Amino acid sequence: MSRARTKARHGEACGKPGDFPTREAELEKHIAGCRGVSFPVAVVLPAGGSGERTGLSTPKQFCTFLNRPLISYTIQTFERVPWIQSIVVVVAKESFGLMMDIINRFHHTKVLVVPGGSTRHRSIFNGVRALSQREDGTVLVKPKVVIIHDAVRPFVEEDFLLKIAVAAEEQGAAGATRPLVSTVIASTSDGYLDHSLERTKYKASEMPQGFLYDLIYEAYQSCSELDFEFGTECLHLVLRYCGTSAKLIEGPPTLWKVTYKRDLAAAESIVKETLSQSACVVTGGSVRAAELAGELQKNMGVLGMEVEVISDLVADNVKSLSSKWNFILVSVNIHSLSEVEKTLTVLEDVDRALLHPVVIIWVHLESPEDDSSVSEGTSGKRAAMMDLALGAKLRNALVYGIQIHHSKEAQLWERSVEKLVQILSALIRDRNPALTGQLLQA
Amino acid sequence: MSRARTKARHGEACGKPGDFPTREAELEKHIAGCRGVSFPVAVVLPAGGSGERTGLSTPKQFCTFLNRPLISYTIQTFERVPWIQSIVVVVAKESFGLMMDIINRFHHTKVLVVPGGSTRHRSIFNGVRALSQREDGTVLVKPKVVIIHDAVRPFVEEDFLLKIAVAAEEQGAAGATRPLVSTVIASTSDGYLDHSLERTKYKASEMPQGFLYDLIYEAYQSCSELDFEFGTECLHLVLRYCGTSAKLIEGPPTLWKVTYKRDLAAAESIVKETLSQSACVVTGGSVRAAELAGELQKNMGVLGMEVEVISDLVADNVKSLSSKWNFILVSVNIHSLSEVEKTLTVLEDVDRALLHPVVIIWVHLESPEDDSSVSEGTSGKRAAMMDLALGAKLRNALVYGIQIHHSKEAQLWERSVEKLVQILSALIRDRNPALTGQLLQA
Repeated sequence: MSRARTKARHGEACGKPGDFPTREAELEKHIAGCRGVSFPVAVVLPAGGSGERTGLSTPKQFCTFLNRPLISYTIQTFERVPWIQSIVVVVAKESFGLMMDIINRFHHTKVLVVPGGSTRHRSIFNGVRALSQREDGTVLVKPKVVIIHDAVRPFVEEDFLLKIAVAAEEQGAAGATRPLVSTVIASTSDGYLDHSLERTKYKASEMPQGFLYDLIYEAYQSCSELDFEFGTECLHLVLRYCGTSAKLIEGPPTLWKVTYKRDLAAAESIVKETLSQSACVVTGGSVRAAELAGELQKNMGVLGMEVEVISDLVADNVKSLSSKWNFILVSVNIHSLSEVEKTLTVLEDVDRALLHPVVIIWVHLESPEDDSSVSEGTSGKRAAMMDLALGAKLRNALVYGIQIHHSKEAQLWERSVEKLVQILSALIRDRNPALTGQLLQA
Repeated sequence: MSRARTKARHGEACGKPGDFPTREAELEKHIAGCRGVSFPVAVVLPAGGSGERTGLSTPKQFCTFLNRPLISYTIQTFERVPWIQSIVVVVAKESFGLMMDIINRFHHTKVLVVPGGSTRHRSIFNGVRALSQREDGTVLVKPKVVIIHDAVRPFVEEDFLLKIAVAAEEQGAAGATRPLVSTVIASTSDGYLDHSLERTKYKASEMPQGFLYDLIYEAYQSCSELDFEFGTECLHLVLRYCGTSAKLIEGPPTLWKVTYKRDLAAAESIVKETLSQSACVVTGGSVRAAELAGELQKNMGVLGMEVEVISDLVADNVKSLSSKWNFILVSVNIHSLSEVEKTLTVLEDVDRALLHPVVIIWVHLESPEDDSSVSEGTSGKRAAMMDLALGAKLRNALVYGIQIHHSKEAQLWERSVEKLVQILSALIRDRNPALTGQLLQA
């Protein structure tokens, strides 16, 4: 209890960002959403940056981790919010084809892609304009509030979007802020300290920002070429040209902008942590498998992973498929790679691995009588495992195998289970594609 | 060539940060250092933070990755600079014992630990004072310049420290800056936008900062209780109390402060990348092993890993031990785990795994005639491997095994080599302790 409270206080550690919705969760959010917002909301995502600062040749919004480009994570963040009606992604002309491929590949449905301008403000204005007036003359339902965000800030919770949207509707404009991490200083023209600002009086302006649609439209129509060319801050435009002072709302640290190569590693670690929060152990109904499953539940629980144990993946249990990203299939039968195949088929039926790689670990529990080291089966088992994994990887499922010998000696058995837990946790946490198809030893 | 230039321009991606020195490199740096600085320099590292923002129970400077606490990485960054004479680490009283353990465990030699005060400025002043006056009355060689840094900024290059030290000696004070990532805004008392600052006119003040020792001492002696209680910026103190305007020097993005949990993942990824830049393949003199080594050199080179091939680790080749973090031992002899043991012994003799885990991968190249699947040796080999790895892990060496079957069919062989390269790269990159002792299949 106290742990939960501490986590919640610290925001980032509470596992919310990238907390990918289950069907039930989606339903709940839908209800909450309908309760919260009674006006149409759209999003503009400028995604035209060149990514120079990452030190990578690919613009950072198109950099990929866990098989998916960063911008798709950001789109998903908005797409899963039921009260957001459409998302306009503004990209450089040369990235148009790439962007359309991403939308098709990851089945994004609420997205409209429009070409960017030569500066940030021009790009955002293109996106805003596209919400009331299409190039082909057709008109969308004009939103009451538009949320402007960044393609390279993939983690925003629905709660926070709601706060921004509601405040924007009430006040005209609202923006996320964060406390300053460093002191801000002014430099003389020859590079010496002129003065430093008192840190507590200032904040960093972050994204998302929300605006009444007509207000931000008016600001962009009124602003100067100089603003379009050198400005960066939308809140400033509505203050200057419409006299509207934005409501400032402090956001969580996860709103940070993926700027450098190291930030991609940080974003990947956040997604991996979220995907590793729970696993489903399937026992196939065997008593010995169920005993091992019980031990896993206990031991992995200590490490913070919630483990659900079920006997199979049929009937009601199928719902585990749409709430879990990790499946541990315990088998006492040497031939039961067929269970892995079956699981793969069911996962494919529900399109489970579309957005994140699913991990399937086949745990082969050898009975004390087995001596697999000299059994003819081992080599064939390895080859079959490798083939299966190769095919699965193409469908974004990562298959690994672990053998564990059921020793009658309590101490040996305990040590094997401990090792099994370590390997399972590592495989689930790392989601390493280079190690699929391996048959490891616990 | 053009690639190298691009990388260098982007700073972070150029592999410099955490570029752990080889002996030759140390010598070169020593010479460069002696050329650059002709006055005594000391460092003060405030390390009293509570780490609330990481969302972790451990203060972030004591959080561990790759078996070592963050603060030890930072200390090492300064310790390897020959012209830095001493490092004062200022810690909260309750962390004193922990800090001394870290210093002993990682053989830090230039470090003096002093207790912190109740605020950042009080802690820094304690550190500065300790450089001229010890509590027991003894006096150290007073430095001419003192560099003040943060325990939670582990990556600073010697070049940049040199710039700061030289500018501090010439101008009295110097500080690192970074361009602002976000617009800075001022809020009204009721939480609305008051005004936004023009981003180009301001900078973020970062660490390290350098001062003439007497100047910063005087600033701290003159400053008010209010400064001690609420101030955070040393540059401000010397400006206000000594009239010295600090020289501002833009630093690389790697100077960033590890603040949140995600930053620890980012720091770990930077260290891992640096450790993965090169590997040493030992062939044992076998012609077939040498052929495979050649293929590895070519294929891993494409992935950006520099591979050196040697026949053994004796005589002159021993110097590879002190420049590489990864060893791939190719063996055509089933019994040659002894090579792994020998390598472990030699590594231990030079204390190679003190600061970073060393990876040793035993690659067993099976001849086309072998059919190891039914050979009696496999099980014994696995058990021996596991035992060996368990012992090695205690000495910070990560041992893995990979079997590769030397197929006479060109296409099969090519595929196996490709798989081997993938597994090798993943093991070296991930340095996963849970998978040591496994015998994988390429």
